[in-house]
Amino acid sequence: MAINVTVWNEFRHEREDATIGAVYPEGIHAAIAAGLREAGDHFTLRTATLDEAEQGLPAAVLDDTDVLVWWGHKAHGEVSDELVDRLQRRILDGMGLVVLHSGHHSKIFKRMMGTTCNLKWREANDKERLWVVNPSHPIADGIGEYIELPAEEMYGEFFDIPQPDDLIFVSWFTGGEVFRSGCCYQRGRGKIFYFRPGHESYPTYFNPDVRRVIANGVRWAAPVNGPEPSFGIGGPNAPLEALPE
Amino acid sequence: MAINVTVWNEFRHEREDATIGAVYPEGIHAAIAAGLREAGDHFTLRTATLDEAEQGLPAAVLDDTDVLVWWGHKAHGEVSDELVDRLQRRILDGMGLVVLHSGHHSKIFKRMMGTTCNLKWREANDKERLWVVNPSHPIADGIGEYIELPAEEMYGEFFDIPQPDDLIFVSWFTGGEVFRSGCCYQRGRGKIFYFRPGHESYPTYFNPDVRRVIANGVRWAAPVNGPEPSFGIGGPNAPLEALPE
Amino acid sequence: MAINVTVWNEFRHEREDATIGAVYPEGIHAAIAAGLREAGDHFTLRTATLDEAEQGLPAAVLDDTDVLVWWGHKAHGEVSDELVDRLQRRILDGMGLVVLHSGHHSKIFKRMMGTTCNLKWREANDKERLWVVNPSHPIADGIGEYIELPAEEMYGEFFDIPQPDDLIFVSWFTGGEVFRSGCCYQRGRGKIFYFRPGHESYPTYFNPDVRRVIANGVRWAAPVNGPEPSFGIGGPNAPLEALPE
Amino acid sequence: MAINVTVWNEFRHEREDATIGAVYPEGIHAAIAAGLREAGDHFTLRTATLDEAEQGLPAAVLDDTDVLVWWGHKAHGEVSDELVDRLQRRILDGMGLVVLHSGHHSKIFKRMMGTTCNLKWREANDKERLWVVNPSHPIADGIGEYIELPAEEMYGEFFDIPQPDDLIFVSWFTGGEVFRSGCCYQRGRGKIFYFRPGHESYPTYFNPDVRRVIANGVRWAAPVNGPEPSFGIGGPNAPLEALPE
Repeated sequence: MAINVTVWNEFRHEREDATIGAVYPEGIHAAIAAGLREAGDHFTLRTATLDEAEQGLPAAVLDDTDVLVWWGHKAHGEVSDELVDRLQRRILDGMGLVVLHSGHHSKIFKRMMGTTCNLKWREANDKERLWVVNPSHPIADGIGEYIELPAEEMYGEFFDIPQPDDLIFVSWFTGGEVFRSGCCYQRGRGKIFYFRPGHESYPTYFNPDVRRVIANGVRWAAPVNGPEPSFGIGGPNAPLEALPE
Repeated sequence: MAINVTVWNEFRHEREDATIGAVYPEGIHAAIAAGLREAGDHFTLRTATLDEAEQGLPAAVLDDTDVLVWWGHKAHGEVSDELVDRLQRRILDGMGLVVLHSGHHSKIFKRMMGTTCNLKWREANDKERLWVVNPSHPIADGIGEYIELPAEEMYGEFFDIPQPDDLIFVSWFTGGEVFRSGCCYQRGRGKIFYFRPGHESYPTYFNPDVRRVIANGVRWAAPVNGPEPSFGIGGPNAPLEALPE
Repeated sequence: MAINVTVWNEFRHEREDATIGAVYPEGIHAAIAAGLREAGDHFTLRTATLDEAEQGLPAAVLDDTDVLVWWGHKAHGEVSDELVDRLQRRILDGMGLVVLHSGHHSKIFKRMMGTTCNLKWREANDKERLWVVNPSHPIADGIGEYIELPAEEMYGEFFDIPQPDDLIFVSWFTGGEVFRSGCCYQRGRGKIFYFRPGHESYPTYFNPDVRRVIANGVRWAAPVNGPEPSFGIGGPNAPLEALPE
Repeated sequence: MAINVTVWNEFRHEREDATIGAVYPEGIHAAIAAGLREAGDHFTLRTATLDEAEQGLPAAVLDDTDVLVWWGHKAHGEVSDELVDRLQRRILDGMGLVVLHSGHHSKIFKRMMGTTCNLKWREANDKERLWVVNPSHPIADGIGEYIELPAEEMYGEFFDIPQPDDLIFVSWFTGGEVFRSGCCYQRGRGKIFYFRPGHESYPTYFNPDVRRVIANGVRWAAPVNGPEPSFGIGGPNAPLEALPE
């Protein structure tokens, strides 16, 4: 089944910093989209970036998006609150959201979690080893016992998030930290997957395992044709009894 | 151990509607506080209401509150966003929150959940039977297999909340609905308990079982002396490696 | 993708009781298999029954089964412990298990849960209404806000099971009970879905919604190509340090 | 409130191996009990060992035990199946169980989990750092952001357990592994806490933080006076309707 995927990227680091630009010459979004393209032609892909019109996500695009992939870092504050409101409504109505790396501090992720989403971090070329702790989950499809990334930014616990509905990966870092690095959430009719790796200075989104996990996450987060709940006054048998004045 | 409890109530229905005022002549907050007083002298009790100075919750009160009990309904929109911000910070720092009945639509509960918290409802004197689905949980202490309320407002699924960390009660209603009516959440260093019963027109907060559950919920939600996480750059071994320029 | 499904049925009621035989003339397994056949040709279907050789599940069949659907009731005790051992191993290695109705008391379900799986029951033609409490889940695909069954056996809480990883349905019954009637579990590399309806004296397995849920459950429980964990002495860097004698 | 705690230990390593005996001259059980004694006089303490009459746990002791702490390793197979049956019944009826370290492979833990409880291990003096991932939980009371153990046996994922209801600790090991090292489960009216540290060759049970966690775990797992469910035919309104013959 076809899944309409929009890969959203802040797209600032790559244009403002030559070192980063050398890692992702076409932008992080392009690398992520290329990974999804490889994963199969059931993805219909769009990319969107912060500096485009309507911050890349006009209503027509958002309404036509089944799963939104989100990478942001230094410009979280520039994303308009009105867009965040619309994103939240779309997620609760069924749109999947895949939040990557520093997207943990995006307005939309914090909105959906209700917590600060704070964590520890260190840029020190830690080795990261992401261990699978749920081998039955579709997001672990095709992955070995762990994914090893030779150099990454460290993210460490405590990670201020709600307890995940499903925890898929736990990361180990050279320096002595651990991190819940693959976290699944149900919210309304929608699903959210947070996946940790992908600091802008490392070629993480070219890693085949990372690409596979993102593709798995998109498939898992894709909407299902579940019920559209009705809310407010009612119930199948209402009115049941006339109330006294 | 002493627990400082603040029972917050909107306190409008009881003053504006004589029928409601007859049910709760001193206000819903007074009935809830009386129930907690009965439950033991380990509770140090305060009440607070919307129309008091600083909406009843100046910083000095909030900072001295271990568990906040919240009842609101018709004036959710009047609670200031600044107060909601402070409540969220206090909860994430350890303050317990017990949200009652129509508090499901309070700004603070929606903020903490990240969802609409919408539901179905009907005022028709339904009988409500709250079944215990986790008999091992401290919130079920002293409760029988179910609590029966002869007449209550119906709340029905789908209740748009995150999946609870622990589900304690599921309600049955005459008219054919069910509802997840006792829901536990961890958020940051704090804990949240949502408990359904308590429409303003019924004497629900005089019911001994309801009072017992609220007291149990307050004890469960009371802060523990868990770690105060540090966030931001760092980690026990930082800096690990000097990064190249 | 093709999924090899084996529908296992005790197949005693239908042969021993004319009333039941009239409801399911070819057996409950045949009705369930027919429902799966309708759902699409990605299912490769087998049926198996207790009185067949090796209780219907010789190793060759079990090893070739992606998802096993289980209906049993009056002859749970006759299922051999050796078969239960093999079922457990297969599930932990990835085979999905869909347990229906009175299968709650089967040896294999109790083995996987670690609890008694006891519940309340009543044969009284209750109406059952199964409310969807997770509209984002693939098992709710194509289902409305609730499924209504005009007459069913009642199952009531407390249902002595571990808290489900995902709770999909909660049932309401005429007589005043509720029940967690759609429960998902991860165990090892495998997944288990318990779905309540289907007393032998009612034509429940001809109901289109019930059939749809079973088909969804089978798809959800189908194995993924997740990692095959290694256990025992080892670890990627072992031996790390020679231990002193 | 008084809690009757029985600390059960296999007590073989300490007697059979002089090196281990030097670490725990009075046995691991004595060290654990001493830690609990320090934690407060609300614990009424007993110890029990495998080679005592009735494997240390005659019915009178078991029935009088609120929380059972379990350490076993090399003699899991000697624990009688009949004792395991009784332990399971007691847990489902409310007795708390705290399983330590190699108790992951005990018959009773595997029985309650329904999985193999397999894991990776290595004896190589790894440093272990147990990070708190739920700072709101009573088991984290009085603990810092992490507990550091200078030398321990490594346990690594995949740990074949059901997803915990609450995950409290995640361990980091020098050699590159992670482990879900503090796991909470509800089963029936009872609660189970698995806590990883404590290989017999290290003085782990003299560590103040480890002792504190065990004491917290015992308090958390202590029975509450929740409902005693009735099972079988019934329900509050039964019989609802006479069924046709």
